[in-house]
Amino acid sequence: MNLLLKEIRHDPLLWLLAFVPVLFAAEHFKPESHTLLFLLSVLSIVPLAALLSHATESVAAKTGDAVGGLLNATLGNLTELVIALTALNAGQYMLVKASIAGAIVTNTLFVLGASFLLGGLKYHVQEFNRVSARVLAVLLFLSTVALLIPSAVSQADSATAAAFTQKLSVGLSILLIVTYGLSMLFSLKTHRELFVSAESGEAGEAPWPIALALATLAGVTVLVALVSEVFVESVQKAAEAFGMTPAFVGFIVVALVGGAAEMTSAFSGARKNRLDLSVGIALGSASQIALFVAPVLVILSYFIGPTPMDLQFWPGAVVMIFLATITAALVTNSGRSAWFVGVLILMVYLIFAMTLYLLPPRV
Amino acid sequence: MNLLLKEIRHDPLLWLLAFVPVLFAAEHFKPESHTLLFLLSVLSIVPLAALLSHATESVAAKTGDAVGGLLNATLGNLTELVIALTALNAGQYMLVKASIAGAIVTNTLFVLGASFLLGGLKYHVQEFNRVSARVLAVLLFLSTVALLIPSAVSQADSATAAAFTQKLSVGLSILLIVTYGLSMLFSLKTHRELFVSAESGEAGEAPWPIALALATLAGVTVLVALVSEVFVESVQKAAEAFGMTPAFVGFIVVALVGGAAEMTSAFSGARKNRLDLSVGIALGSASQIALFVAPVLVILSYFIGPTPMDLQFWPGAVVMIFLATITAALVTNSGRSAWFVGVLILMVYLIFAMTLYLLPPRV
Amino acid sequence: MNLLLKEIRHDPLLWLLAFVPVLFAAEHFKPESHTLLFLLSVLSIVPLAALLSHATESVAAKTGDAVGGLLNATLGNLTELVIALTALNAGQYMLVKASIAGAIVTNTLFVLGASFLLGGLKYHVQEFNRVSARVLAVLLFLSTVALLIPSAVSQADSATAAAFTQKLSVGLSILLIVTYGLSMLFSLKTHRELFVSAESGEAGEAPWPIALALATLAGVTVLVALVSEVFVESVQKAAEAFGMTPAFVGFIVVALVGGAAEMTSAFSGARKNRLDLSVGIALGSASQIALFVAPVLVILSYFIGPTPMDLQFWPGAVVMIFLATITAALVTNSGRSAWFVGVLILMVYLIFAMTLYLLPPRV
Repeated sequence: MNLLLKEIRHDPLLWLLAFVPVLFAAEHFKPESHTLLFLLSVLSIVPLAALLSHATESVAAKTGDAVGGLLNATLGNLTELVIALTALNAGQYMLVKASIAGAIVTNTLFVLGASFLLGGLKYHVQEFNRVSARVLAVLLFLSTVALLIPSAVSQADSATAAAFTQKLSVGLSILLIVTYGLSMLFSLKTHRELFVSAESGEAGEAPWPIALALATLAGVTVLVALVSEVFVESVQKAAEAFGMTPAFVGFIVVALVGGAAEMTSAFSGARKNRLDLSVGIALGSASQIALFVAPVLVILSYFIGPTPMDLQFWPGAVVMIFLATITAALVTNSGRSAWFVGVLILMVYLIFAMTLYLLPPRV
Repeated sequence: MNLLLKEIRHDPLLWLLAFVPVLFAAEHFKPESHTLLFLLSVLSIVPLAALLSHATESVAAKTGDAVGGLLNATLGNLTELVIALTALNAGQYMLVKASIAGAIVTNTLFVLGASFLLGGLKYHVQEFNRVSARVLAVLLFLSTVALLIPSAVSQADSATAAAFTQKLSVGLSILLIVTYGLSMLFSLKTHRELFVSAESGEAGEAPWPIALALATLAGVTVLVALVSEVFVESVQKAAEAFGMTPAFVGFIVVALVGGAAEMTSAFSGARKNRLDLSVGIALGSASQIALFVAPVLVILSYFIGPTPMDLQFWPGAVVMIFLATITAALVTNSGRSAWFVGVLILMVYLIFAMTLYLLPPRV
Repeated sequence: MNLLLKEIRHDPLLWLLAFVPVLFAAEHFKPESHTLLFLLSVLSIVPLAALLSHATESVAAKTGDAVGGLLNATLGNLTELVIALTALNAGQYMLVKASIAGAIVTNTLFVLGASFLLGGLKYHVQEFNRVSARVLAVLLFLSTVALLIPSAVSQADSATAAAFTQKLSVGLSILLIVTYGLSMLFSLKTHRELFVSAESGEAGEAPWPIALALATLAGVTVLVALVSEVFVESVQKAAEAFGMTPAFVGFIVVALVGGAAEMTSAFSGARKNRLDLSVGIALGSASQIALFVAPVLVILSYFIGPTPMDLQFWPGAVVMIFLATITAALVTNSGRSAWFVGVLILMVYLIFAMTLYLLPPRV
């Protein structure tokens, strides 16, 4: 416990934890101030996600390499998963889908682009391991194919019934989870030399004792779930107050909030000229959303939530996912980066964000 | 003739030839058992295709390098061409188009993916010549652009008349055949050093005398045509019995049956760590379908078949062809492969197959 | 002035300048012969564009490297810009948009493909700097994303209002111009070593004195504007006489006429085995159209022209731009070229041209 407090004292990001009790107080006394609740929940999720990430790493460090790697990979997007589950439970399927698509695009474009830019402002040209970057880019591209197909097929054929999309989505989810399992076998067991361990970046920090780590993991997950509930309830109303479309909120705001912890690791890697770390976090997280978070949500939607959810995305989101993965494949191909490449990738992200911001709400 | 019998004794695949007379007997005595006829015709086409392939190689070996290469390349997809011609003659345009699209996707994804997987299970990392793989991938991508354009343009513009699509298809077919001729000049004459001869894989087998080879080529082509007729007649009814959609049959079943002979070569190449051979067969066959088989069918449709055929594919098939060629370009880019890359490519193929299997038949 | 006359005497392309007075005479005496006026205006624009290009380079040579590079880059597509502005002023938005899309596709496919073919007919295999080619291809791909998005989003969603597209187009234009400014900073200042100076190809020619260069620049721009006016007025009527669709005229004819001067530089570079020069001109020009010419036209449309113009292109044009940029990324990836690669790229261009030529005019 002392260790936990010490950690909090040394990491300014964790000072934001003070907002968690403020949020619960505000929810109790001012349940109608949606904008306030929204802002407080954003400020609370960010440090909780950082704690979650550190706790996961500590558990992983104790359990040995293979199991630890598996834990890290699986719980790496726990924050996104908990937020999406809360929204699923509230029946907000559009928010869930927008946040899946948004998390893929945000990791691929925003995290990668900002890493290249931040690194490039300090170093003239940065090199990274292009063999593993290519493997990651191919993995990401092929992971997202399953998300593109239902929309591509049903967009093309108006007679295609909802029943088809639903059955297809379950089938695709099973295929994706199997592929995810095999990707773990590949990256943690048979070909681990190809993958830079994203965790080695935190090597400076001492891992927590296992009891503290497990307790933090459990406790913080519950807190994230509680905060997410406020977040999901307030986000749409608050968005209206800020003039944001629902698409923009799910795609951009939720994705940025949910991934804040990983982003800080990716950016600090880039500033230390360890671009492999940044590329690994950006593309690895995006693949994981496609291969693990999305299918798990489809399958869990049969148990929680009013009706099952499918994998058919809004066609504009499909185009954005596709362009983002092609961009990742093109820019990582050479294994070199400079500031302007980061600018270009960020510009594509800004184009998407602007499009979603201006998009009139659909009827 | 003895040589032919000896060959058959030594190659278990050719023992399936016994099903050819059984098929013709069944067709005569039980013309209504579509499922039986379908299964027998599949079992008959596979060994006939293998014989055809060996006969072509023997003729090619006798006629010298350039002409032989040309023969090999042109007759390499003879089985697919004969099946498609039979379907064209029966006026089954949807089956013809599905089998063209399916042959491209199956060669690109299934043959390439299974080769990577089979090779990867034996070797930790396999390398292949990435210069020729890139040339093949670019050739494949650009070959398929002609197949994407009619759907892309007319999908976008509902006022576009059928007359436009028909004229465009004839023009595209002529362009494709000219390009095919130039690709032969390139790969057999001016830049042959870039291409690994796919035939050298069979180096162990002695070529047949030219008379035997020519007689086999002629006789087996006739047999394939006769068997194809039964296959085309029975496939739709049998598919219904198995609960398969027509799209699935054309795209997956016909493509797998028609390409079985080449697949065995590609897979045995991969197991011998000769991945260049596998990549050459997979991408070479797919390009050839796009550059040669498809336009020849369009042009022949003016002479056989009830009405002319165009090159406008179902939009879902267009998306699948496009994703398959992009996948081929991405995975061959590095010139290295491991088992999981094969798994990923096969997963995309499974996604497509599952989509087509579940697709409700269109009205 | 003597220098200018000497230059004209030595460059056969400039002899076409004789058509400029003929054009103005014809316009005065035969204002109804649209076909004649069209042909004369084409013959006049080509040498004027060449003069403009030489004058720009001379000014650039005098003003020092950074400013000169900026001038060269900004005025490099001055002819295209003036033609488009004339069409904008005449309210011919479809022609403007077709010429933007066409200039990108023509530079990417026709200039690149013909350079590879012309170079490849002389040299067995040509190598070029693949690091800078990749940067250019990525820059081109990401530049065109902004042009794809409005159509992708609104195609997908019929409820999207014109007001949304208009607002989005202005926002995108501002983003594109900012990116263009940053790309100048990158290519002329911080990372100039990555870019081959396209101008060094003309090193043999002595730059003109600054006064002559500036006077030529001003005078020829006025002439181009006057000739463009005749061109824009006559092109549609002439096209009908030749049986060309408006889409074909804007996409192919205007793009070929406007870019004729640059093309000659790219082709002569390829024949001298300086393929870096050709790739730089082809991909650089295409990026510049997307990053600079297109957004400037959108913004200027608020000041000239009957109503504002947006960035929403015909979906077929979007597909063509996308396929062209992917093609550029694939073929420049290896840094090597041979004649057949040029043939393939040109075939894709021919496919597009044939499609546009046959396309029935939309209602």
